[in-house]
Amino acid sequence: MYSILNTINSPADVKKLNIEQLKILAGDIREALFNRLTKIGGHCGPNFGIVETEIAMHYVFDSPVDKFVFDVSHQSYPHKMLTGRKSGYIDETHFKDDSGYTNPDESEHDLFNVGHTSTSVSLAAGLVKARDLKGEKYNVIALIGDGSLSGGEALEGLDFTGSEISSNFIIVVNDNQQSIAEVHGGIYNNLSELRASKGTSANNFFKALGLDYIYEENGNDVEAMIKLFKKVKDIDHPIVVHVNTQKGKGFKLAEENREAWHWCMPFERETGKWNVDFSAETYTGLTTQYIMDKAKKDKDFVVITPAMPMTAGLSPDLREKLGAQYVDTGITEEHAVAFASGIAKAGGKPLLVTNATFMQRTYDQISQDVCINNNPVTFLFNFASFDGLTDVTHLGIFAISAFSNIPNLIMLAPTSGEEYLNMLDWSVEQKDHPVIILMPGNAVSSRSADKDYSRINTYKVEQSGEKVAVLALGDFYQKGEELVALIEKKSGFKPTLINPRFANGLDEKLLKDLAQNHEIVITLEDGILDGGFGQKIAAFYSTSDIKVRNYGLKRKFYDRYNPQELLKELGITPEQILADIEELLR
Amino acid sequence: MYSILNTINSPADVKKLNIEQLKILAGDIREALFNRLTKIGGHCGPNFGIVETEIAMHYVFDSPVDKFVFDVSHQSYPHKMLTGRKSGYIDETHFKDDSGYTNPDESEHDLFNVGHTSTSVSLAAGLVKARDLKGEKYNVIALIGDGSLSGGEALEGLDFTGSEISSNFIIVVNDNQQSIAEVHGGIYNNLSELRASKGTSANNFFKALGLDYIYEENGNDVEAMIKLFKKVKDIDHPIVVHVNTQKGKGFKLAEENREAWHWCMPFERETGKWNVDFSAETYTGLTTQYIMDKAKKDKDFVVITPAMPMTAGLSPDLREKLGAQYVDTGITEEHAVAFASGIAKAGGKPLLVTNATFMQRTYDQISQDVCINNNPVTFLFNFASFDGLTDVTHLGIFAISAFSNIPNLIMLAPTSGEEYLNMLDWSVEQKDHPVIILMPGNAVSSRSADKDYSRINTYKVEQSGEKVAVLALGDFYQKGEELVALIEKKSGFKPTLINPRFANGLDEKLLKDLAQNHEIVITLEDGILDGGFGQKIAAFYSTSDIKVRNYGLKRKFYDRYNPQELLKELGITPEQILADIEELLR
Repeated sequence: MYSILNTINSPADVKKLNIEQLKILAGDIREALFNRLTKIGGHCGPNFGIVETEIAMHYVFDSPVDKFVFDVSHQSYPHKMLTGRKSGYIDETHFKDDSGYTNPDESEHDLFNVGHTSTSVSLAAGLVKARDLKGEKYNVIALIGDGSLSGGEALEGLDFTGSEISSNFIIVVNDNQQSIAEVHGGIYNNLSELRASKGTSANNFFKALGLDYIYEENGNDVEAMIKLFKKVKDIDHPIVVHVNTQKGKGFKLAEENREAWHWCMPFERETGKWNVDFSAETYTGLTTQYIMDKAKKDKDFVVITPAMPMTAGLSPDLREKLGAQYVDTGITEEHAVAFASGIAKAGGKPLLVTNATFMQRTYDQISQDVCINNNPVTFLFNFASFDGLTDVTHLGIFAISAFSNIPNLIMLAPTSGEEYLNMLDWSVEQKDHPVIILMPGNAVSSRSADKDYSRINTYKVEQSGEKVAVLALGDFYQKGEELVALIEKKSGFKPTLINPRFANGLDEKLLKDLAQNHEIVITLEDGILDGGFGQKIAAFYSTSDIKVRNYGLKRKFYDRYNPQELLKELGITPEQILADIEELLR
Repeated sequence: MYSILNTINSPADVKKLNIEQLKILAGDIREALFNRLTKIGGHCGPNFGIVETEIAMHYVFDSPVDKFVFDVSHQSYPHKMLTGRKSGYIDETHFKDDSGYTNPDESEHDLFNVGHTSTSVSLAAGLVKARDLKGEKYNVIALIGDGSLSGGEALEGLDFTGSEISSNFIIVVNDNQQSIAEVHGGIYNNLSELRASKGTSANNFFKALGLDYIYEENGNDVEAMIKLFKKVKDIDHPIVVHVNTQKGKGFKLAEENREAWHWCMPFERETGKWNVDFSAETYTGLTTQYIMDKAKKDKDFVVITPAMPMTAGLSPDLREKLGAQYVDTGITEEHAVAFASGIAKAGGKPLLVTNATFMQRTYDQISQDVCINNNPVTFLFNFASFDGLTDVTHLGIFAISAFSNIPNLIMLAPTSGEEYLNMLDWSVEQKDHPVIILMPGNAVSSRSADKDYSRINTYKVEQSGEKVAVLALGDFYQKGEELVALIEKKSGFKPTLINPRFANGLDEKLLKDLAQNHEIVITLEDGILDGGFGQKIAAFYSTSDIKVRNYGLKRKFYDRYNPQELLKELGITPEQILADIEELLR
């Protein structure tokens, strides 16, 4: 097992191998992928398909003198194994050493910590520029693929490179004919045309931008890839190297179902069965059901997702059923937002769903294209929680801070399954506001909720009490429940519990009334405190005698943390908060 | 004067005219442009060049049943004159009725309020989608040009349209061979190739995306344009209509110097002399001088701007002098940020300059491509002030709120010319942090300042006093000076005046020390309060007895306001603040 991979401690070791050994190495790498992925999951198909490309890159080029920039970087596992980090794949005790993305803290062979797509061309173009300014000589190679080409940042970068760069720059387009789901966008039809013509079609997107171009049909043949890279090494101008690869190559199930195996949970190798219990009710499940029911009842309702159908549980068969009422725009967050604004303007009822972290691409579109125009688009943010995706590049904890301060926007933070669905339907039906709904990151809880949210910024008093008022926002509401129960039990008085519901506005009347018989206001929110909900409450009371204490996360790029330990570290447990309250009451 | 334009009250009146009359109308419109622009300034070249296109659009199509979407929309003046709003151009007393951008509040012929570029294709695609879902029939026309094609949102929209839309959609590309400055990006070379071949070149960016395509050489010939639009009207699929026009057509000076006349201040028609006094020292002037000096001294220093060289005062001759140390990336904010990150990573010293409002496009790139990687890029935000651009689509008042809560980022708010230059140079030289510098929106003031800002989040006590501490951020520092002078005069005690310098961090030691002999903390900031500086101070003191009062703007899309009146309305004058303080002290 790993007979060749075991000998690889740096790219220099790759260069010593002959073709037969490189082929064995490719097999070893795939075994190592199986080893890690079956046990802890991760990005699957993208890495199986890119093995030969990355072996050939290290065989031909000289990293870290030559610079590799991986787009989105979830397809860098083979590269990592070849740059001194194989133990993160072959040795279970070292899995946690490896982030699953390129990471400069791990290795000098990783230039950037990258988890959002479509960044590689621009980042690499910057390296090219600095190299040329300094009069240095090395190859700069960007590896882009997996649907990333349709992202605006990548398109801007390609367009720029096509006319503004005239020195060495190699852009490898890994064409595996797939995004997370199927690809969308005219550029992919052009790739298809280029594959069909073996790169000879006169209709060529890259050439139209002024880029040189070369095509390789056998992207999973290490010998062909070496030959190809030797041809472009030290080239004196930018070139696009279009490589045809097979997503999931060497893992039959992933070859056959590219979408299902883009990313995986731990699984049984033979059957492909994921070792995970999907039986519990989830907010994603509620979303799927809502979408399917609503679409049937209302022909103006349309669901939009930029390449993330599964974040709403929309499997291929359900997408098929939705027909024209479902649009996957591809990896194009900005377009998706403006597109939704246009739909709303013309009387449609658009619901845009994706992960909170990817929506960061759209601050301006939400502000300008939607909110200035006050068009009634509903945005559903999944994983807008500390307790979801914990990779530094995929954190949802900035959602409130980043978006809630945009004017005209309503941000709703539901606290139960019923409230979630009621808010969702209210938002889709109303015509007066753009709305962001934060999908809760905790388990679905059942509490009844209002149907109408048109009285903007009205908080709900769920328990009326004295001395201490707890404003527990969204999926931190349950923490508020625990807290008030503990206060009542330990301190002998009944505190007030409030469900703010609106994450970015003040219920001024209620807040003023609270001042009558409360001394302390506690805010709880699932996100960073800076720019968030609690600081607005603190500012509201800042000239009064009421003491306010905000609980939430710090302005920090947390990375691969244990969510429950983090809460303890931040003092966000009922016991710790009670201790703080007791000190304040003294 | 205006013999034909005077008869136009709606597009129906345009349709009644013959070709000769339409030509007279074009002349009338240009006269009306002169009338408004010489007196109040505005977007000049773009509107002179697009006259015939917009006449022909209203002649052939049937707005508002057919839907026009104007990109960036600063080139919609002729459209406005044809849709009942000519008085905003021919009658000085009505100039203020017209926003200079499309605006649904003004007319049913305006679909969106748009001031950022590259949005039209996606917004219009949304209209197409809703139309088709509802089974309605009308033409949707997007008009894009003036450099907007290179923006990621437009490229995403074109790519999407090329494969995902199969019904009526007409995308008019107004090719005037110019952005604000010269165009940059491969796509413009392709447009040039297409013009040279009269649209016949096989190398065609639009066709590569799967779009149908038609070319018109005579974009300033109203008859040709009518013929063209008749050809594509009611088409059953998307088509790009590539129109060759002359920016500034009919205004000799603007034809000859397209950059200088993209946008103008009030001017003398014969000489082109702008009626404005440029003699005062400005922060833009300081910036220009700094850039030119620094570039000469340091070959690693590189200035990047996404199509906004003049926001740093970089005229064509200065750009020429900067050579490789200057990069105009074209309208590509996202690319520009990632590009800067790459430069910093490879040891360059990048300074990215543009207007704060346009940087909204880059929340994600600043967060992910730069700040997670902690690459030392310096961002210089111009017009990050209430007292700069007052159009709703160009407000700089969201800069602190939108960006300051990103981790790892330092946001500096200078208060004088010397402090500005010191911060700029410190930031460009240091290697530890990404930095945003807010260019002050007021007149340059002269006060000495520190050279070193490496002790992050250390505020500067400029005057030590008692009872009241005033934290006056950035260009609101001078308001703080006035305030403390007034307090001292009227209330008989000496308050403390603090220059926070760091807009997004707390000087916790200093803030704790203040609590010793102060009862009230006043914060002043040039931006919306939500998510800003003052709320952080309020939250810091929220469990203490210190009273905090924040002064700044509301979370609101202000539009074309009088800045000084707005301050009064918000209570941000020394007298009003003093009255608040006196009440709090009671």
